[in-house]
Amino acid sequence: MEPSMKEKIMKHSIRLFESKGFSEASIQDIVNTLGVTKGTFYYYFSSKEELLTQIQLNYIDYMLEEQQRIIEQPDRTWKDKLSEVILMTIQAIEDRGSSARIFFRELLHITGDSLDLIKKKRDQFRLNVQSIIEQGMESGEFRDDLPAEMVAFSILGACNWCYTWFKPDGSKSDTEVAAVYTEMFLNGLKL
Amino acid sequence: MEPSMKEKIMKHSIRLFESKGFSEASIQDIVNTLGVTKGTFYYYFSSKEELLTQIQLNYIDYMLEEQQRIIEQPDRTWKDKLSEVILMTIQAIEDRGSSARIFFRELLHITGDSLDLIKKKRDQFRLNVQSIIEQGMESGEFRDDLPAEMVAFSILGACNWCYTWFKPDGSKSDTEVAAVYTEMFLNGLKL
Repeated sequence: MEPSMKEKIMKHSIRLFESKGFSEASIQDIVNTLGVTKGTFYYYFSSKEELLTQIQLNYIDYMLEEQQRIIEQPDRTWKDKLSEVILMTIQAIEDRGSSARIFFRELLHITGDSLDLIKKKRDQFRLNVQSIIEQGMESGEFRDDLPAEMVAFSILGACNWCYTWFKPDGSKSDTEVAAVYTEMFLNGLKL
Repeated sequence: MEPSMKEKIMKHSIRLFESKGFSEASIQDIVNTLGVTKGTFYYYFSSKEELLTQIQLNYIDYMLEEQQRIIEQPDRTWKDKLSEVILMTIQAIEDRGSSARIFFRELLHITGDSLDLIKKKRDQFRLNVQSIIEQGMESGEFRDDLPAEMVAFSILGACNWCYTWFKPDGSKSDTEVAAVYTEMFLNGLKL
């Protein structure tokens, strides 16, 4: 299926926001890259801020859906689910790395209810990881002498940081990076 | 000792860049918060970009010096040195969190030789962590079946991510967070 005009505007804006910055990229720049008029832009978005909000909601909704799919699988250990969430987070970089990088850079341009909604969804993603860890602690798969909240922050932090350096076409694949990270988090570095 | 005018300009700009964004904060805004003229600004900095570069160099030079001090301590295990670098990175948030957040957000406003220099120094910080891990692997403190480069990325990623959520006045202290992180990285989550 052909992408809709709305999808095209979002896709081209992501590239433009990443290369030029949100403040520097004007609506005129966006419509110029697509060969359409400002009228077309305003048919879909009331402002550049609304476009940025939509880009971020698209990204976080995709991440939450994928995570939910992993969590709901029957007959999997909590260790397996944690390891799949780690892999999913790193795999998303190829398709959605730009959205993630824009998010952290341009967060201060999203305000009010939009910001609250995006923050709530991002918190939900983290709390779901925390819940995997808590349930793994209860089931006896994971040690329960560490605070699950901090463990979730450390794992998600390491994975999210991949957005700053991981190159999908580099010497390590997303699967290899995820395997090393999972092994580190589960069994540690000490001999 | 009283801070110099140059230091004052840097300190106030960090706050302004963090709250308003680098593109949105003008040199006029900066000098207004200090009650000085643009002439004073240009006596110390040729442009807003040069000011941003100086802020980043100050931050990364401080981090490299602290790291070097830790690495050069005699009679410490590699495990101890790794754990001290983790603590130092999280402790730096209180004093220097704004500089770090600005760095990742405003990186695209630094170009050319300045960007190369800052990237080189940041890489050096990461390579020093990698070297601690490699030497710990050689000495038999750490397992040597994981790629040291990936291990360094995962540890630094988790620590750097703290800049996005850690509040120095929150319920967990920097020492507590660092202790949980170190324990995770060394011994893992699995029972």
